[in-house]
Amino acid sequence: MAVAAPAKAAHALAAAAAGMVLLWCVHFRGGLALSSPTNKGLIFNVHPVLMLIGFIILGSEAIMGYKIWPWGHDTNKMVHLLLHAIALLLGSVGIYAAFKFHNESGIANLYSLHSWVGLGTICLYGVQWIFGFVTFFFPGASPSLRRAALPWHVRSGLLVYILALLAAELGFLEKLTFLEAGGLGRYSSEALLVNFTAVLVILLGSAVVMYVTSPMHNEHSHGYSAVRKP
Amino acid sequence: MAVAAPAKAAHALAAAAAGMVLLWCVHFRGGLALSSPTNKGLIFNVHPVLMLIGFIILGSEAIMGYKIWPWGHDTNKMVHLLLHAIALLLGSVGIYAAFKFHNESGIANLYSLHSWVGLGTICLYGVQWIFGFVTFFFPGASPSLRRAALPWHVRSGLLVYILALLAAELGFLEKLTFLEAGGLGRYSSEALLVNFTAVLVILLGSAVVMYVTSPMHNEHSHGYSAVRKP
Repeated sequence: MAVAAPAKAAHALAAAAAGMVLLWCVHFRGGLALSSPTNKGLIFNVHPVLMLIGFIILGSEAIMGYKIWPWGHDTNKMVHLLLHAIALLLGSVGIYAAFKFHNESGIANLYSLHSWVGLGTICLYGVQWIFGFVTFFFPGASPSLRRAALPWHVRSGLLVYILALLAAELGFLEKLTFLEAGGLGRYSSEALLVNFTAVLVILLGSAVVMYVTSPMHNEHSHGYSAVRKP
Repeated sequence: MAVAAPAKAAHALAAAAAGMVLLWCVHFRGGLALSSPTNKGLIFNVHPVLMLIGFIILGSEAIMGYKIWPWGHDTNKMVHLLLHAIALLLGSVGIYAAFKFHNESGIANLYSLHSWVGLGTICLYGVQWIFGFVTFFFPGASPSLRRAALPWHVRSGLLVYILALLAAELGFLEKLTFLEAGGLGRYSSEALLVNFTAVLVILLGSAVVMYVTSPMHNEHSHGYSAVRKP
């Protein structure tokens, strides 16, 4: 199957962003651990890695997949559903890591815009998943209701995806501001790495939204407008 | 003319956000001034007020206006063009205020994600305005080219608008993080005011995008799909 240019760009941007967030957390920040008696920063490091690779990048693939995968409608839907479920699960573990880091370091929870937008987004993501599951998979709504619900499913899915990107950008800025307040140079290689990763994530999100909202020749067989006939 | 619910919601959210950013900068932060020998914070305060009220809210009205204004296609286009020009101008003065504050306070420029996204966005906004002006106003492209360019004008306009919202959110978070590092309480009334203003701006942007992307019964006479016949 032919994959359109914005989808290819999205895959390349996702791979680059994943590599950069790992470089940041492993090389500059000392690695990842869900439990650490002495270096609580290692617990925090789980958060950006899981939110970017687990939540945003898997979510991006799940969103674009409908237009890319060649397996036919039912299989595509199953993989779409499954990838979003894994994204939600990994995102939840990533949020757990942030709370665990705060609690073990005596830092307040849920005071910042990043935390508000992030927690609100993952809740909306879960609601969106449940509605999608019930309407399009099990027990499944009537064909006419599915047809009416699909454009809303797509638009609200894209809205939640954009909110997830916003939460990620706020997270990059917040963490880097804390590090800079603690002495990290504002033009240091670590600061530039974090900012360029954030820029790549904006480009990734733009490529995904452009790809999904553009019409394609196989739209009616595999695309978002395809509703399974009973 | 009947104005749809999302547009009414956007107007109400814009009015509330404008009031709240003024309350923040005047009541909590001491007011606005483009020049101040002793209190450089007053110069900074011009920045959020002009970026939110001048750039984002005027931009929102310019974007929604095409679907709301009753004046016919040519007048609507003129007001659309003019409002975006004023938004660009006020946004530029707002950015000037941020640089002036930095320079007079000995703070580095252009190191943060907020500054990168913000400056990139206003440049793209200017490019988008010039392309719109040349294609749809003066000298104006051929009708077939206009028809082909219009969906791209609308989609790239919405993309730039979403980037402007992202820059605003990053700005709220950045300034509040600095204030909190300087001693402001994380759950103080000022911190809650800033965070709630940022949440309102997200809701405003969502209402604008939902309104503009939904089809309307008068779409063909005043809407974005209307291209002036020669």
